[in-house]
Amino acid sequence: MFKKVGLIALSTGIVLSGAGLSNVVAASKDASANGKQNSNKPVENVIYMIPDGFGANTAANYRIFKGEDAVWDQHIKGMFTTYSANKDITDSAAAGTAMAAGVKTNNGVIGMDLEGNKVKTILEASEEAGKSSGLVATSTITHATPASFAAHVESRNNETEIARQYIQESGVDVILGGGKNNFLPVSEGGKQAELNLIEEAQEKEFEFVETREQLENVEEVNVEKGEKLLGLFAGEALAPEFDRDETEEPSLAEMTETAIDALSQDKDGFFLVVEGSQIDWGGEDNDAGYAMHDTKAFEEAVLEAIEFAEQDGNTLVVVAGDHETGGMSVGSATSSNANADILKNVTATGEFMAVQLNEDRSNIKEIILVYTGIELTEKEAATVQQADDAKSAINKVLSERAGIGWTRYGHTAAPVPVFAFGPQSDKFVGFHDNTYLPKIISKAMKLK
Amino acid sequence: MFKKVGLIALSTGIVLSGAGLSNVVAASKDASANGKQNSNKPVENVIYMIPDGFGANTAANYRIFKGEDAVWDQHIKGMFTTYSANKDITDSAAAGTAMAAGVKTNNGVIGMDLEGNKVKTILEASEEAGKSSGLVATSTITHATPASFAAHVESRNNETEIARQYIQESGVDVILGGGKNNFLPVSEGGKQAELNLIEEAQEKEFEFVETREQLENVEEVNVEKGEKLLGLFAGEALAPEFDRDETEEPSLAEMTETAIDALSQDKDGFFLVVEGSQIDWGGEDNDAGYAMHDTKAFEEAVLEAIEFAEQDGNTLVVVAGDHETGGMSVGSATSSNANADILKNVTATGEFMAVQLNEDRSNIKEIILVYTGIELTEKEAATVQQADDAKSAINKVLSERAGIGWTRYGHTAAPVPVFAFGPQSDKFVGFHDNTYLPKIISKAMKLK
Repeated sequence: MFKKVGLIALSTGIVLSGAGLSNVVAASKDASANGKQNSNKPVENVIYMIPDGFGANTAANYRIFKGEDAVWDQHIKGMFTTYSANKDITDSAAAGTAMAAGVKTNNGVIGMDLEGNKVKTILEASEEAGKSSGLVATSTITHATPASFAAHVESRNNETEIARQYIQESGVDVILGGGKNNFLPVSEGGKQAELNLIEEAQEKEFEFVETREQLENVEEVNVEKGEKLLGLFAGEALAPEFDRDETEEPSLAEMTETAIDALSQDKDGFFLVVEGSQIDWGGEDNDAGYAMHDTKAFEEAVLEAIEFAEQDGNTLVVVAGDHETGGMSVGSATSSNANADILKNVTATGEFMAVQLNEDRSNIKEIILVYTGIELTEKEAATVQQADDAKSAINKVLSERAGIGWTRYGHTAAPVPVFAFGPQSDKFVGFHDNTYLPKIISKAMKLK
Repeated sequence: MFKKVGLIALSTGIVLSGAGLSNVVAASKDASANGKQNSNKPVENVIYMIPDGFGANTAANYRIFKGEDAVWDQHIKGMFTTYSANKDITDSAAAGTAMAAGVKTNNGVIGMDLEGNKVKTILEASEEAGKSSGLVATSTITHATPASFAAHVESRNNETEIARQYIQESGVDVILGGGKNNFLPVSEGGKQAELNLIEEAQEKEFEFVETREQLENVEEVNVEKGEKLLGLFAGEALAPEFDRDETEEPSLAEMTETAIDALSQDKDGFFLVVEGSQIDWGGEDNDAGYAMHDTKAFEEAVLEAIEFAEQDGNTLVVVAGDHETGGMSVGSATSSNANADILKNVTATGEFMAVQLNEDRSNIKEIILVYTGIELTEKEAATVQQADDAKSAINKVLSERAGIGWTRYGHTAAPVPVFAFGPQSDKFVGFHDNTYLPKIISKAMKLK
């Protein structure tokens, strides 16, 4: 079922080579090149791609990491603000609710306004218009961002309730990600689900899969005939991309492709949300390698979406992070070079590497070499050995090597870029608030 | 001659109030609101406004500082890359040359390519098309950014040669800023000018002024009749905005207004470059108050430009920083609040405040209170008292208070936003390299 995901050269993605630099040139957009895709045709399908924690400088470092423009770069349309109702810095619940329903709410709240009323999301409005819908993520599928489109709870932490709403109340047709534990009657980490939502889903026309192989062998799911698909490939979140067990877990691109294949059977169109969930988690730890490799996995999913949209002609693809994470910069305290490309061979998170250290951390150079291909200097090694927190020290040393600075652990209030491709994508040009994104999409889809 | 510079509410600058937050809401751009200004009419006049060192997060913190959208926010069109030919992180010379002539060159080089050939700038091409031209800045007017439009030198440091080229070789009609020393036969700080370029300028139809009052009393300068204007209001750079002696130095807005008044006499149109030079210097020191107050002075100049453009209808205003400085973020290591507005009452740079401290820095709380209106905690005061470098410590404490993080002293390689207003402003939509900006402008002006 899966085809090779190649980084195809789009007609609008001309790349000029830099003068021997790791930095990357952006080609000027030829006014005519994207004309066909920027038409005013009504939008039948929307693929809303959310790279969690991805800001303008995440995009900049990723261009350097990749060595050329990412598929979204040429499609930038503007920027938008992200604050929530009660905090300058949003969490993913309030951000998701704003991006799904156009309403500012408090951090932690999913799909409800400040008075506790449920707010209709753009996914739900799409369903009312007869379209099918899907949610895809690399976190638990009940995590804040996807949940904001199809659930309504006071607290994002209530993931078992979110799972219940997905299966018992929502009309979502395709659900793919992690978080199986939230659908089963198990008690783990304080969570208690009484229902077996997987059995319930199966009774409701959902096909259930839990490994990459099963997903690959799914017969065509025809949502037009009422067939649905539930794929939960881990008890909790899926693995970071460079740690993924390819026999167990599909990639984000593979889940996206499967979702598009299924949903595009609907003659009335579809609304699909795809989250690159863990770019944020890299940022939270100031772990640049983690953030870059999960951005790569996300880009491969965006390529699936754009490839479909190019062929289809009636599909709008929107790429918009929900907030920035880490205050990432290009150029760091000690480095004037933008060298994110040195992170290409990183195969583990800083957290994982820290756990591999022996008690006196004397194997630091060996561990870093094994998992990153980078030879630390004696000074860098000593910095990690002497640090209070080995994980943070590893992430800092590697970020400095890559010329990546960070200002904080956690989200920031930076405005983030919005990219759009397909009909009516020019409606996103300008400076917006996150609550305007679903309004623009809704108008483009002519939803009520 | 000067009128009150008010922060006028533009029809395109709708501002919604945030829910009691210091953060600011961006209104969605009504597709029709800016239609008239985004026409495809040929562009007669260009005002190219360059806030040195101004990135997307400088814009974000400034919105919070101001309490509402800045005049440019709604006019964002995209972002662009800034690297130079030999460095990932550009300096203002290579960035200026890219933005003026569309050519990548090495850091430090003004108006020349990698082979040492002079490259024609868009200002020079405008002159060839019969238009008048002007340079306005708050640094020495011979500093890298303005120099890149009207001079050609191997080293940006050769400011006396840049001055000579302005007067003896360029066709620039209006020159307003600091740097008088570079036009006079004085030796200072290793610089040696043999010529009295001010006298020479006066022989060449330049009226010369050197105080705010003289500028205010200048009779109408009619460039159509060959009249020119040279205003040099300080030996070196002008003062930071909050330190400006209003009897001696005009504001950037006042210089901009005077330049527009003079240049707009030309029936063939004009090309004006205005630099907010010192936003960068605030960033270099991680001095958020300095950066914010000089951004305010720059915004007042942009308001002059947009006000003229709105009335004229044939004027394109482009606002684009040459690079980002400091790796500024919204939210800092210790603060999740975006509080740039607490810097509103700052009246001095961190450097100036540090000089006011007594030997044991025991007057730290008093000094900070006097120059910022902020009461430091005992802990913050102790941090400054014990720091190696009082200036950096003051800037860090105030930035943390404001929720502003920084990753480095110096420029970064972050992409920066481009804002455009007026006819053909939609040509800037998308992701570009800095070398494409003058190409877009040139095409809009139908220059050869």
